[in-house]
Amino acid sequence: MEDTKALLFDVFGTVVDWRGSVVREIRDFAARNGLTLNPEAFADAWRGLYQPSMERVRSGEIGWTVLDDLHRVGLDRLLADNGISGLSEAEIIRLNHAWHRLDPWPDSREGLARIRRRYIAAPLSNGNVALMVDLARHGDLVWDAILGAEVARQYKPRPEVYFTAAQLLRLPPESCMMVAAHNDDLRAAASCGMRTAFVARPHEHGPGQTSDLAPAENWNIVAEDLRDLARQLGV
Amino acid sequence: MEDTKALLFDVFGTVVDWRGSVVREIRDFAARNGLTLNPEAFADAWRGLYQPSMERVRSGEIGWTVLDDLHRVGLDRLLADNGISGLSEAEIIRLNHAWHRLDPWPDSREGLARIRRRYIAAPLSNGNVALMVDLARHGDLVWDAILGAEVARQYKPRPEVYFTAAQLLRLPPESCMMVAAHNDDLRAAASCGMRTAFVARPHEHGPGQTSDLAPAENWNIVAEDLRDLARQLGV
Repeated sequence: MEDTKALLFDVFGTVVDWRGSVVREIRDFAARNGLTLNPEAFADAWRGLYQPSMERVRSGEIGWTVLDDLHRVGLDRLLADNGISGLSEAEIIRLNHAWHRLDPWPDSREGLARIRRRYIAAPLSNGNVALMVDLARHGDLVWDAILGAEVARQYKPRPEVYFTAAQLLRLPPESCMMVAAHNDDLRAAASCGMRTAFVARPHEHGPGQTSDLAPAENWNIVAEDLRDLARQLGV
Repeated sequence: MEDTKALLFDVFGTVVDWRGSVVREIRDFAARNGLTLNPEAFADAWRGLYQPSMERVRSGEIGWTVLDDLHRVGLDRLLADNGISGLSEAEIIRLNHAWHRLDPWPDSREGLARIRRRYIAAPLSNGNVALMVDLARHGDLVWDAILGAEVARQYKPRPEVYFTAAQLLRLPPESCMMVAAHNDDLRAAASCGMRTAFVARPHEHGPGQTSDLAPAENWNIVAEDLRDLARQLGV
């Protein structure tokens, strides 16, 4: 890995536990507003709208739209589907910002700090810049830059997102390593010439997860978590 | 300053001592290559090409070009003007990268760290992303994001650079404060609706500096250095 200069991280699921955090936020939201709803089902339904909403941008059906705004469209629809109305705008904004308050996995802060001692580290996430900034501050994570979808104005796994990140760092893709808990993200990064590290997150989707339990291809590194990734990198 | 959420920093001169650092790098370069040249004059001449080179982009004479590449064009010209030839490409790249190894002013690291406790902090520099990443790592500075010219594909003081930074943070310009040692930078930021903090750097251009010795307008804050700025912000 001598020529690797930068590690680029998927964030939702790889660095932070989006589901556990969003479930907690929905539970608090329901309690605050005297609502009866299943927080796990609501969180999964919200996340279920994630790929279709980004696909509208990728396909060109709608112009560039940041993830905060896609989340909000999905949330408005879910609230309507659940017969929830009469909420204040401030309350809806607060719930939509649940995605800015996701907790890191227990190993993320230390693993990332160790990795940063030797490598440039940046998120390469579909989350927008403001969302990534808030997540880092919330979780006490330090990045060298915020890269990803918004600076490319396109969503992963479209290649321009990976190429834009490498270009902004003035590095060839071969000097970048994509770190993700998702095989399809690594597949897209590898097809752009990047190196790959798979980090297993078998509870990202809760107890019954069936996807991405194991590496699907011969990735450059396969790690148990970000501390293990740091260890394998020798930092 | 209750509504201020983010502080955006000019970097060359405001956060780092570009002249002292580039002079040191040129002196080392001359010694390594057995050349006789005046490091101060060479540094000032190189910096003298900075505004004209960016003006070529601002005017549309040339397309978007990152500062690293503008620096290189200027360096090649200066080397030729000084009759210096026969250097290896690696040696020229090394000298051009002097701008990636600028030392922070003595107060910058502590001041910035204190400011970041309460505020989002990001460079809003004409330096490109890779250059800013290297400067931060060199000087042990921590930023929340790297904003500035490259993500706007335009150079300050063009308004789109300031507006793009605020937009990426999802903040109105009024919630952003521009921090700079240069009155013209603050003037441009203020005309975009940003708040302003002037930080005096009376030795940026060496002992004979005549410009920007004092605030030219009634900026929101006038500080002696970044520690003093933190103090005035109550952090």
